[in-house]
Amino acid sequence: MQRGKFLTIEGTEGVGKSTNLAFVADWLRGRGIEVIITREPGGTPLAEEIRSLLLSKREEPFDETAELLLVFAARAQHLAQVIKPALARGAWVLSDRFTDATFAYQGGGRGLSKAIIEQLEQLVQGDLRPDLTLILDIDVELGLNRARQRGELDRFESEAVVFFERVRAAYRQRAESAPNRYALVDAGKTLDEVQIEIDQVLTSLIG
Amino acid sequence: MQRGKFLTIEGTEGVGKSTNLAFVADWLRGRGIEVIITREPGGTPLAEEIRSLLLSKREEPFDETAELLLVFAARAQHLAQVIKPALARGAWVLSDRFTDATFAYQGGGRGLSKAIIEQLEQLVQGDLRPDLTLILDIDVELGLNRARQRGELDRFESEAVVFFERVRAAYRQRAESAPNRYALVDAGKTLDEVQIEIDQVLTSLIG
Repeated sequence: MQRGKFLTIEGTEGVGKSTNLAFVADWLRGRGIEVIITREPGGTPLAEEIRSLLLSKREEPFDETAELLLVFAARAQHLAQVIKPALARGAWVLSDRFTDATFAYQGGGRGLSKAIIEQLEQLVQGDLRPDLTLILDIDVELGLNRARQRGELDRFESEAVVFFERVRAAYRQRAESAPNRYALVDAGKTLDEVQIEIDQVLTSLIG
Repeated sequence: MQRGKFLTIEGTEGVGKSTNLAFVADWLRGRGIEVIITREPGGTPLAEEIRSLLLSKREEPFDETAELLLVFAARAQHLAQVIKPALARGAWVLSDRFTDATFAYQGGGRGLSKAIIEQLEQLVQGDLRPDLTLILDIDVELGLNRARQRGELDRFESEAVVFFERVRAAYRQRAESAPNRYALVDAGKTLDEVQIEIDQVLTSLIG
């Protein structure tokens, strides 16, 4: 049994992750590939409870290291219960966010040490990394305006523009540092143009 | 302002932590010391929510690394919100469990790597360690019988005797490895005898 491939979709708020995640899933399923759609933080009942802790607003200030460790706790559970079993039986896994989001939000956004995030990545994932990560990239203000039309904001969505500028810069830097693993997609274009680009990326991945 | 002292009480189930924690608090308060009583996992509203995740029984198997990271996430929050501010203003902090419990339960009990626990300890605590840790030590079966009279068992209390034997062995080993920081108290003796021993330990700590 050949191991399935692990694909992740990343980007700042309002970048069109959900729409394009559905596009990728349909594209793969149209070629007979079994696809498991999942998300982070979350993906299992326990990990979704951790997600609720992370996203809910509260009066108590959230310690940044506590936030980082909660993110990786949810990830360990998600890997053990969902991602690794699916990949092992040959299914593909398509996740709305994964560890690149940690490097972008907790690393870039909050300024936590990249070396510490890498240590936790190694502890929780061993050698497992996504085979392909689509980073949807958009002007921060444009994306936030879109996201804010969706209703009440969670704890992350309520951050200031300058926070998301740092998140976006961290995503772009990761894309540049390993162009073979990342596809940086200009999500400011029309949806048709974005999906033509994603189609090309997927076609070359399938080989 | 002199930094307060940080005391922790540890031991397997049914060892008498609550009773002796109250004894220690009364002893210190009787000497005019301000004492903050707290516990792990927990100690803040958010950390108590993490505690609920850790202790509640669920159908989903709990990944051991996820458990370890949740414990340290709660600890980071507890340190930032309660322990460090209290010590800084000169209060003493008395905690029902701390990182020795992680070495005992997740390290000894579950068999997770001591080196990894030490890495997380360093990440979350920096150089902060308890000034004194009382380890209440008792025959495992005797303690479990006591604990089980208290009612329904949580996810940890429901572990097998062999698990608690490993937890106890890990506690004893930590006490032996640093006799200046630990007081290993035979909790199988009568309560009076136990408290005479604790009185001696506290007297020598006060100096």
